[in-house]
Amino acid sequence: MPGTRSSRELQNLEVVAGNGLLHRRAFLTGGAAFAAAVTGYTLSETAGAQGLTDEPWSRKAGTPVPEYGTPSSYEKHVALTLSNPKGEPRTQQGRTPHHLLHGTMTPNGLHFVISHSGNPDIDPARHRLVIHGLVRRPLVFTLDTLARYPMVSRMGFLECGGNSALLFSSEPLQASVQAIHGLASCSEWTGVMLSTLLEETGVNPRATWVIAEGADSLALHRSVPISKVLDDAMIALYQNGERLMPANGYPMRLLLPGWEGNMNVKYLRRLKLVDQPAMSYYEARTYTTILPGGKAYQFYFLQEVKSFITHPSPGLRLSGPGFYEMSGVAYSGNGRIAKVMVSADGGRSWAQAALQAPVLPKAFTRFRVPWRWDGGPAVLQSRAWDEGGHAQPTRAEIVSRRGQTPKPATNPLAFPSGHYNGPTSWAVDQAGEVRHVYT
Amino acid sequence: MPGTRSSRELQNLEVVAGNGLLHRRAFLTGGAAFAAAVTGYTLSETAGAQGLTDEPWSRKAGTPVPEYGTPSSYEKHVALTLSNPKGEPRTQQGRTPHHLLHGTMTPNGLHFVISHSGNPDIDPARHRLVIHGLVRRPLVFTLDTLARYPMVSRMGFLECGGNSALLFSSEPLQASVQAIHGLASCSEWTGVMLSTLLEETGVNPRATWVIAEGADSLALHRSVPISKVLDDAMIALYQNGERLMPANGYPMRLLLPGWEGNMNVKYLRRLKLVDQPAMSYYEARTYTTILPGGKAYQFYFLQEVKSFITHPSPGLRLSGPGFYEMSGVAYSGNGRIAKVMVSADGGRSWAQAALQAPVLPKAFTRFRVPWRWDGGPAVLQSRAWDEGGHAQPTRAEIVSRRGQTPKPATNPLAFPSGHYNGPTSWAVDQAGEVRHVYT
Repeated sequence: MPGTRSSRELQNLEVVAGNGLLHRRAFLTGGAAFAAAVTGYTLSETAGAQGLTDEPWSRKAGTPVPEYGTPSSYEKHVALTLSNPKGEPRTQQGRTPHHLLHGTMTPNGLHFVISHSGNPDIDPARHRLVIHGLVRRPLVFTLDTLARYPMVSRMGFLECGGNSALLFSSEPLQASVQAIHGLASCSEWTGVMLSTLLEETGVNPRATWVIAEGADSLALHRSVPISKVLDDAMIALYQNGERLMPANGYPMRLLLPGWEGNMNVKYLRRLKLVDQPAMSYYEARTYTTILPGGKAYQFYFLQEVKSFITHPSPGLRLSGPGFYEMSGVAYSGNGRIAKVMVSADGGRSWAQAALQAPVLPKAFTRFRVPWRWDGGPAVLQSRAWDEGGHAQPTRAEIVSRRGQTPKPATNPLAFPSGHYNGPTSWAVDQAGEVRHVYT
Repeated sequence: MPGTRSSRELQNLEVVAGNGLLHRRAFLTGGAAFAAAVTGYTLSETAGAQGLTDEPWSRKAGTPVPEYGTPSSYEKHVALTLSNPKGEPRTQQGRTPHHLLHGTMTPNGLHFVISHSGNPDIDPARHRLVIHGLVRRPLVFTLDTLARYPMVSRMGFLECGGNSALLFSSEPLQASVQAIHGLASCSEWTGVMLSTLLEETGVNPRATWVIAEGADSLALHRSVPISKVLDDAMIALYQNGERLMPANGYPMRLLLPGWEGNMNVKYLRRLKLVDQPAMSYYEARTYTTILPGGKAYQFYFLQEVKSFITHPSPGLRLSGPGFYEMSGVAYSGNGRIAKVMVSADGGRSWAQAALQAPVLPKAFTRFRVPWRWDGGPAVLQSRAWDEGGHAQPTRAEIVSRRGQTPKPATNPLAFPSGHYNGPTSWAVDQAGEVRHVYT
């Protein structure tokens, strides 16, 4: 019985790393003597429910249930941060507020957005998807015809190649987890495997690439190796159960699990099978990764293993010493997360985090670790490994390979390099404030 | 190579049950010669992309990205159906449009709602949760203090005890899957296990029930056996990553995985540990299951194994003979779904459906089966089994045990019995129209 666990047992939680990190088992076996640390809410034995008062909302009927629910008016601050809120003729970025969310899914309203030409208002009855080029039989698909095909659902993260690029800065940032890592999100996607449609069209053996083109006004297009297309590419029609959001490709997008966001072409209208890449604007310029010597990675498609702590993080002040759950998100374009290690002393010692089941390939995995904060300075950091044995590089490793930017900047696309997957460090000061640092 | 699969091989898909049901492997191995059935979209070999025209949305920049995304204006019909849209002083029901969704999750805007007194507008900073009664130390929790506790995420369905009760009708219904089964939905819920909080308060061994009370104007309350509370009850704080929707209990609700929706008390403000049930209005009257002889099941908490076909279903007309994916949702309050069988001939022969992984306990599981419709009459039906070996009863079994209602009615709460988990049959006529029937 929980009530009979001795307080002595509760005091003896296993400390497994410096600065108060506890064994992840502390969660699995239940309570962790949190009350000792969270003061001011104990009722006297005889008070009964006198901690409650009837607030106005308990004294009158509420408002009618809407036919499509939206968040409480008290949650207005839980929003994408927009780089270009008026939609001026340049790229618009909307970042996911990871520090205000919890779990592994991103709700549809808060999925990150990179939009190079705004949200097109597409009539789904008139939208077409054409597959042509090096095929035996070119075909046109409507939404109605696609609805007859076998579908697949999968949880999957999407991440902009420029996500986290602020961390190439040589100086720490005055920025939240939303500003730094907000260009990654995770949804359940449902649609038709592209390999199914290519069985219909047939594939000419000379086809080595597929050019995917959107119906937006840029006709944004990217080249995808045919091996990826035949492996796990999907024509995504539903996001978290409902049709895609307009900013996420309504009525259909290409989904390339684990690959750079921009390649997951939104408003997909055309797939052309060809024998060489298109070298389109967005692959030859914007999303090409420049290296320190002036050379570039020509094609850098994979979003490699990454993790970051969301709770605590800048903007979430610790309210006093004692127990906290430290928690964050890990993912890898290579497959499942195998392990996440967490440090509270800037990387000198590490504790293994608990992973929330189910751990799915190429999807957000929530990690959690119990932490007893003594009220002194601490530096929090996480590092993830995937099932392929790939580890997040240290900051020194990634900077030596990829370079850094001399001072902070705000537009990740202005950085010479995307695909940053090094660690993120949060310093906690004695007031409980959290800020970004390097260790 | 998909392109080299012989058309002869594609013709020889294995028929495993009457009226054109194919082996579920047809999906796992890829294409199923769908094109043969879906006419009118083949481009000539030389046409290239001429199936595409530049529509207006491809000729100008789109609209600004909003800070909280909402569905396309073309999806306005994807909405809850409301029993009481003006919020008159009686119960409001909002039903999930299963036939317009796909995958396993219900988006937050479309989670079903039963509301007995409207949506209270709760200030989360002033909301309190009190745990008292037969405890060692009564405690009051704020949202801020709960945020420090270890959290858990789990996919879980919620279902009203009155869901599907229309099927107690002795006559078939002119109704969609939304009208019949729309009071069930599935989300990822994140929050604090109630057992964790009870370790803080301690539990007096005399406590056998917990009375859970909401902060709505009814102070709706239900009694829960303490065994369930200590097993897997959660104080849910997040729904699909974001804070709960106002109609789903913002800022916190009790989550009792697999148990009757009404017991998952919304706007939770109080948990009182006691030694007998409260016999409150909603457990002693509304949600008590009356039996044919006038007796009643006093406590019928579990939502038993159920399944229904969503595609096709009434309102989704088949556009001609040929291949279709038949698909639906299965779930059980007992645990995981073990098997779903599907019939296209009204139950004379059956094919085993493919289950979308991951199959999670007490959560929606999407099942799919390939079907070649010959254009003649067909009756589609599904039947699910859970990992505990429980099967959906036949209609004859459930009617003999629970009775039926002489003629169709529209308000499920007016029926003598809830907790219907028999099969649902959809008849397809030669025009491709789908309607409810009994077999």
